[in-house]
Amino acid sequence: MQRQKIYLKMKDPKEALEIFFNKFDPKPILEAEEIPVLESPKRITAEPVFAKVSSPSSHSAAMDGIAVLAEDTYGATERNPKILKIGQEAAWINTGHVMPEGKNAVIMAEKLNQIDEESIEISSSSFPWQNVRKVGEDFVTTELLFPQNHQIRPFDLGTLIGGGAFHLKVRRKPRVVIIPTGSELVNFNTLSGSLHLKKGEVIESNSSILSSLIKECGADPIVEDIVEDKSEKITDALFRAIDSAPDLVIIIAGSSAGRKDYTAQIIEDKGELLVHGVTIMPGKPTILGNVKEKPVIGIPGYPVSAYIAFNEFVRPFLYRLQGSITPLKKLSKVVASRDIPSKLGLEEFIRVNIGKVGERVVAIPLPRGAGSVTTMSKAEGIIRIPSFLEGIVAGEETDAELLVDLEDIFNTIVIIGSHDITLDILSDEIRKNTDGIRISSGNVGSLGGLLALKKGTAHIAGSHLLDTQTGEYNTSYISKYLKGFPVHVFHLVTREQGLIIQKGNPKAVKGIEDLTHDVAFVNRQPGSGTRVLFDYKLHEMGIDPSRINGYENEEYTHMNVAVAVLNGTADVGMGIMAAAKALNCDFIPIVKEQYDLVIPSALVDDPKIQLLIDITRSKEFRKRVKGLGGYNPAKSGDLWKII
Amino acid sequence: MQRQKIYLKMKDPKEALEIFFNKFDPKPILEAEEIPVLESPKRITAEPVFAKVSSPSSHSAAMDGIAVLAEDTYGATERNPKILKIGQEAAWINTGHVMPEGKNAVIMAEKLNQIDEESIEISSSSFPWQNVRKVGEDFVTTELLFPQNHQIRPFDLGTLIGGGAFHLKVRRKPRVVIIPTGSELVNFNTLSGSLHLKKGEVIESNSSILSSLIKECGADPIVEDIVEDKSEKITDALFRAIDSAPDLVIIIAGSSAGRKDYTAQIIEDKGELLVHGVTIMPGKPTILGNVKEKPVIGIPGYPVSAYIAFNEFVRPFLYRLQGSITPLKKLSKVVASRDIPSKLGLEEFIRVNIGKVGERVVAIPLPRGAGSVTTMSKAEGIIRIPSFLEGIVAGEETDAELLVDLEDIFNTIVIIGSHDITLDILSDEIRKNTDGIRISSGNVGSLGGLLALKKGTAHIAGSHLLDTQTGEYNTSYISKYLKGFPVHVFHLVTREQGLIIQKGNPKAVKGIEDLTHDVAFVNRQPGSGTRVLFDYKLHEMGIDPSRINGYENEEYTHMNVAVAVLNGTADVGMGIMAAAKALNCDFIPIVKEQYDLVIPSALVDDPKIQLLIDITRSKEFRKRVKGLGGYNPAKSGDLWKII
Repeated sequence: MQRQKIYLKMKDPKEALEIFFNKFDPKPILEAEEIPVLESPKRITAEPVFAKVSSPSSHSAAMDGIAVLAEDTYGATERNPKILKIGQEAAWINTGHVMPEGKNAVIMAEKLNQIDEESIEISSSSFPWQNVRKVGEDFVTTELLFPQNHQIRPFDLGTLIGGGAFHLKVRRKPRVVIIPTGSELVNFNTLSGSLHLKKGEVIESNSSILSSLIKECGADPIVEDIVEDKSEKITDALFRAIDSAPDLVIIIAGSSAGRKDYTAQIIEDKGELLVHGVTIMPGKPTILGNVKEKPVIGIPGYPVSAYIAFNEFVRPFLYRLQGSITPLKKLSKVVASRDIPSKLGLEEFIRVNIGKVGERVVAIPLPRGAGSVTTMSKAEGIIRIPSFLEGIVAGEETDAELLVDLEDIFNTIVIIGSHDITLDILSDEIRKNTDGIRISSGNVGSLGGLLALKKGTAHIAGSHLLDTQTGEYNTSYISKYLKGFPVHVFHLVTREQGLIIQKGNPKAVKGIEDLTHDVAFVNRQPGSGTRVLFDYKLHEMGIDPSRINGYENEEYTHMNVAVAVLNGTADVGMGIMAAAKALNCDFIPIVKEQYDLVIPSALVDDPKIQLLIDITRSKEFRKRVKGLGGYNPAKSGDLWKII
Repeated sequence: MQRQKIYLKMKDPKEALEIFFNKFDPKPILEAEEIPVLESPKRITAEPVFAKVSSPSSHSAAMDGIAVLAEDTYGATERNPKILKIGQEAAWINTGHVMPEGKNAVIMAEKLNQIDEESIEISSSSFPWQNVRKVGEDFVTTELLFPQNHQIRPFDLGTLIGGGAFHLKVRRKPRVVIIPTGSELVNFNTLSGSLHLKKGEVIESNSSILSSLIKECGADPIVEDIVEDKSEKITDALFRAIDSAPDLVIIIAGSSAGRKDYTAQIIEDKGELLVHGVTIMPGKPTILGNVKEKPVIGIPGYPVSAYIAFNEFVRPFLYRLQGSITPLKKLSKVVASRDIPSKLGLEEFIRVNIGKVGERVVAIPLPRGAGSVTTMSKAEGIIRIPSFLEGIVAGEETDAELLVDLEDIFNTIVIIGSHDITLDILSDEIRKNTDGIRISSGNVGSLGGLLALKKGTAHIAGSHLLDTQTGEYNTSYISKYLKGFPVHVFHLVTREQGLIIQKGNPKAVKGIEDLTHDVAFVNRQPGSGTRVLFDYKLHEMGIDPSRINGYENEEYTHMNVAVAVLNGTADVGMGIMAAAKALNCDFIPIVKEQYDLVIPSALVDDPKIQLLIDITRSKEFRKRVKGLGGYNPAKSGDLWKII
């Protein structure tokens, strides 16, 4: 084990942050810079702002009407109105305008009766200063407008400008140097048009994500060139960064216990390793350190880990540098759609989809792999499971930090079930044609989708389950698995299922009968409609699955089957023609199958669902679906059965 | 009434917005522009984004460890470990790195036992693809990454860059031309250093506030020069704006029923007046129109009205132009601290301070005048009272739209009561010395402060109520008004009360006895400590209040008394020396009085309160207080009584 650096003393995140803050205390507050007031929104005041003029700066009309001397109006009543002469006892005035000399009240326009160009009749008297905003009513010269450490908002500009604060002192923006490390990484800018990666190359994107997050915190990111996994090179880059007088240095990757992870060692050798390893997941390999009295944070390389570590450590530090505190997260109560186990001793951050199905706001856990960058894009929330819990049980209410607006969630149609490429087109068309309705889809196979309807975690299930007895799709499965749960079944498409093979068919596969020969097969998971179909075909043809090389090798989507064929992991897999076409593979048709949308009858009248069905019937949708190849959308949107 | 344009047919805000949206329908969606991916956060996709490469693009290690061929590990157990040769059967690999040719599994570093530089012992077998992220596990070439009309977030950059979307098409930013109108207005930029306003001039700030709000909505504001209140000039400016092909034109002010309000007339003459007057308050005079098929919105000139009208009409329109929907407001349940009456038939937007006192989140209404720009800065929330309600009763729970973070509210100490300038210093010092603790203060006079404690709407009351029988401050009032409600009383300062007079004392006032002569007095409101003191002095000296010219003329703060003297509204007023000094008035000392902080005993151990008391004891606070003049902070922070 000598080559492994194990983080022996993991800290819990709160303790870790305290250690870091204490090190760079008492207050690592940045110096001030003076900026024009119009640039001040979102900046934080570095000194108190005092009014240089009063507001209003003169007595002003608070209404549209006429300015008068109150004493001139005394005695006027409905029965005994008074006539005032314009230009003498009365002067027209508009809201906000300065009161003329010698006048001390305003009579509202609506209460006047204008006799002619020169005279106005009034039928009640005014009192002094009625409908007048007196000098300093809002604030008075020398008064405090804002204390220091106040974050300026757009409407504060009115107070600042009105108070004569045309320039003001705000905290300088923190400068954060980001050093991406990893010999395998390439900068996407160097790839330009061509997307051809050399063997072993990986596109670097963490520095871009972190830059954008850093800007959100009001700080300036500086991204350095990617550094190879060599101790000297990383050390050099770190020292260069420190010489540029940053407020924080972030080193990305190289922070886990792997063989080539030099960051912790470098910080220990050249400075002070404050924290190495935090009891959070993802984000465990985070490093907090001090080199030459500059704060250095080592961020794990997996994008999700990087995001979590950023939120836990970088974000609070950047706000503190500016004399402010981290804005609170938007939270929502959610109900777990299924058990979510969690490791004791680690605080887990579970990404979830969130949907409102009926009256429940349901959280559906996404795959946990920290390497999946799309789970962050797909996630609508994050559930934190504290380190002392072994998880959350299905149906339990808990808080989720929202990554999207709650209104967006209420506008989301959750489609779970079998994977089909036309759902992507549906998703795009619904975004195009509606005000903010979105589709969130999860691939769990046809059967999984039907069960999700029953559990109340989806609005729609996508299904293509063949009843091998009757040759009919979906109905018998619905009757069996959704007993007593009425549903409407709408056609979405019929599509070509068949064998996806490499371009040019090097293994000379002609049909399912050839799969027992010298070819590597890639299968779909049990419960998927394609697996049902494949097993049925094998049975029909009397082929024993054990004779197929790779039968136990499972993928979860058509596209993943196609990609396995494309890159040679397998020679052949079963899937839809559109997947083969998308990846430029060849295809041997086997069967035309029916893919339906199954919708609980209780939800079918929901306007969102109706809009979705309308879109499946639209010309544009059908045209795009046809373009994929292997699809027949002739019956898209037809109500087929009510079960 | 012929000169008054009354908005006869006011629309409710929902209907008004519908009329406007329908006019510029079906979808006023902006064309696309291509931008580099790094500039895409917050922008909205104009077309679907498909993956150009798979992610991962090669089989990659999901763990740090060694890459192996699973078949080489078969048979390894705890009892019968296997030795693998590095460089042959095993290769060191780090998370995210591409798998070497011929390897299909990774064994975690933690499970290895390294024998020497060349050999590693394993004690369990792997299965194919264990700890490997296969090509396309995250997404596959041609897959939909984002539909159109998706707003890009920082972590979406990982998906975009990983998918090869280095440029993408987003909606062009809407261009909004802002035309401020008003002959009284001056551009603050022309004032530069000097703040000397000519008679009748008012500093224009609405265009700055609106620009900043427009930027928040992802649009580009263009602010035109201020236009005089002349119909031809406004018309010219409007046509110039329309010729520049804007997506929206905003005309500020000139939208109410006042005499010089030309905007509605111009829109009616030159185009189509869709809506004139909306049943909201503030914001009633809003205008929605169409000139040459360009949308034009007339925004009222009062800053608060402008803000409300912006939120109701401009914000949703700008989001719609970009193919998105308006983000939901942050809401919080609050309890009304007192009755809030509201006009039937108008939807009222009440600005409120929000404080957490004990377990209740309490909303305290701010003054309603739409002219007070600071009420927006001071407001922590807005309560909407629907048009069919006559108001909200004290203690009723309702929703408030939050203008600050809920965490900020929880960190706020609410001080209500008598106004004192040292509270500004306390507010600034606490922002300087703590992590985000804020003071929110309301001036309602000493007695009002004590009552607020009892009602649970404040943490601290500032009080200087003289018991004229005993000569002692505050105690007898507390005993009377806070019976059975235990409090701690801390000294804040002693201060000089006296007469504030004009510089050079032109009226030759020597003391209170001279107030019955030919001078104009300005008084404080009943319930304020200063009023109690003044009335006591009059009584002591046997002066009948009716003999004092201006006795009924009331102001609410020391500073407003001083400003009334400064600008000649009054010759003399009673107030603290610091106010006189701040505004360069002269001052005649009458009495040294005691100003205390009264804190419910139940709250006194709250760490926030303790921090505040610590700060009143600090050298820095005392030094700054002394600098104001007329203050003695020697006993600041001393616990004086527990009652």
